[in-house]
Amino acid sequence: MESLDYISKNDYLKRYFEDIPREELRKHCRLVIYKPQNIIVKKGEHINFIGIIISGRALLVNEFANGNAYILKELKLLSIIGDIEIVSLAKGSACTIESIDECTLIAVDDKVFLKWMKLYHGFALHVARRLAERFHESSNENGKYMVYNSNYSLISTIINVVDNITGGKTAENFNIRLKNTRKELGERIGLNERTINRLLQKLKNENLISINSGKIYINNFQLQKLKELKENLQMDRRKI
Amino acid sequence: MESLDYISKNDYLKRYFEDIPREELRKHCRLVIYKPQNIIVKKGEHINFIGIIISGRALLVNEFANGNAYILKELKLLSIIGDIEIVSLAKGSACTIESIDECTLIAVDDKVFLKWMKLYHGFALHVARRLAERFHESSNENGKYMVYNSNYSLISTIINVVDNITGGKTAENFNIRLKNTRKELGERIGLNERTINRLLQKLKNENLISINSGKIYINNFQLQKLKELKENLQMDRRKI
Repeated sequence: MESLDYISKNDYLKRYFEDIPREELRKHCRLVIYKPQNIIVKKGEHINFIGIIISGRALLVNEFANGNAYILKELKLLSIIGDIEIVSLAKGSACTIESIDECTLIAVDDKVFLKWMKLYHGFALHVARRLAERFHESSNENGKYMVYNSNYSLISTIINVVDNITGGKTAENFNIRLKNTRKELGERIGLNERTINRLLQKLKNENLISINSGKIYINNFQLQKLKELKENLQMDRRKI
Repeated sequence: MESLDYISKNDYLKRYFEDIPREELRKHCRLVIYKPQNIIVKKGEHINFIGIIISGRALLVNEFANGNAYILKELKLLSIIGDIEIVSLAKGSACTIESIDECTLIAVDDKVFLKWMKLYHGFALHVARRLAERFHESSNENGKYMVYNSNYSLISTIINVVDNITGGKTAENFNIRLKNTRKELGERIGLNERTINRLLQKLKNENLISINSGKIYINNFQLQKLKELKENLQMDRRKI
């Protein structure tokens, strides 16, 4: 199939390109195929086309100067790449994109894409809407796993401290005072005291710890509940 | 000053609104003032205007169903709010926005804003560009603190384990084998084994740990380096 066939057979694509004359589409849309596990674009490098995935899957990965990488999202059918960079006139790609399996994209050169936005008002509106939709989705989730991880780390640390004191025996009744200060807990997890306080307050509100004159206490019942919560958070994490 | 005075005195605003007739601007731009520490919009609730900050600062906060919150960004002079939601036709705001000090915004109703995008092609292009610029900036950083935190947690856990064995004495020469499996380390931090392996490999490449037949070893020199790295990560974190 040619690009034009894909576009005319898919409602989403048809709407996206509805303002572009057929002749322009025929002239400028091309199919590009990436083999599995290939780099489609590398973070920071120039991307000179927009691409829409019409088969296969790819990973959106963020890499940082220190070599760490974080998978942001799986891209699949009808995911758009390159439009953020091209519309913002950014010099380099915001993320790295790697194909998972064989990926086919409908590609349009950056200059043609920008020309279409300038010539066809309706197309500019579609592009703006698609950008805003993905930005909304991304903002909505942004920070989720950061919060998740902080909470998990604090619970995990508290369990370790208490288990170290009790030797892991939960059968007996106890009510143990955590000797670690909030500052110490924060340093152990890499969070500031304000965040630690907020997280502790939440645990207290859920009756997972007790706070008395600023001191943290945990009884055997609460420890059990904390362990169950930790287990559940682990399960959630595996789903990501 | 009236909204129109602000717009005509600021190059950025002048360019953003250059395609909108002066009479339309006069009729539809209004100034809105929020007292310090007020909610401008709450995540999930409908926002029916776009606002551009012309004085004061606000926080962009993401809140999650379980009550956790994460500060994504500080908004200041010329930050735009509401455009993501209005252009994407989203039902609710992606984030919560709270004023830090007294905030003044130029506000335009959602219906007027969308009408302007439909009537004035140049304005639609500006809106798309501003959205793409912020999306690029946000994507570029997305996951950074997640990665940061994972790395910090692993280093911190390794230090704790070794310190527990040595009793905190670093003066002597030692080369200690970590008995914890990758699975155990992962469970302690809340990360899967694949991520743990990736992070361990990085530490090995930087000669901060040794790996021999799959087993993890740390000597006194490496422990000292790990503690310095942890300290540096903490300093970085305070800057966020």
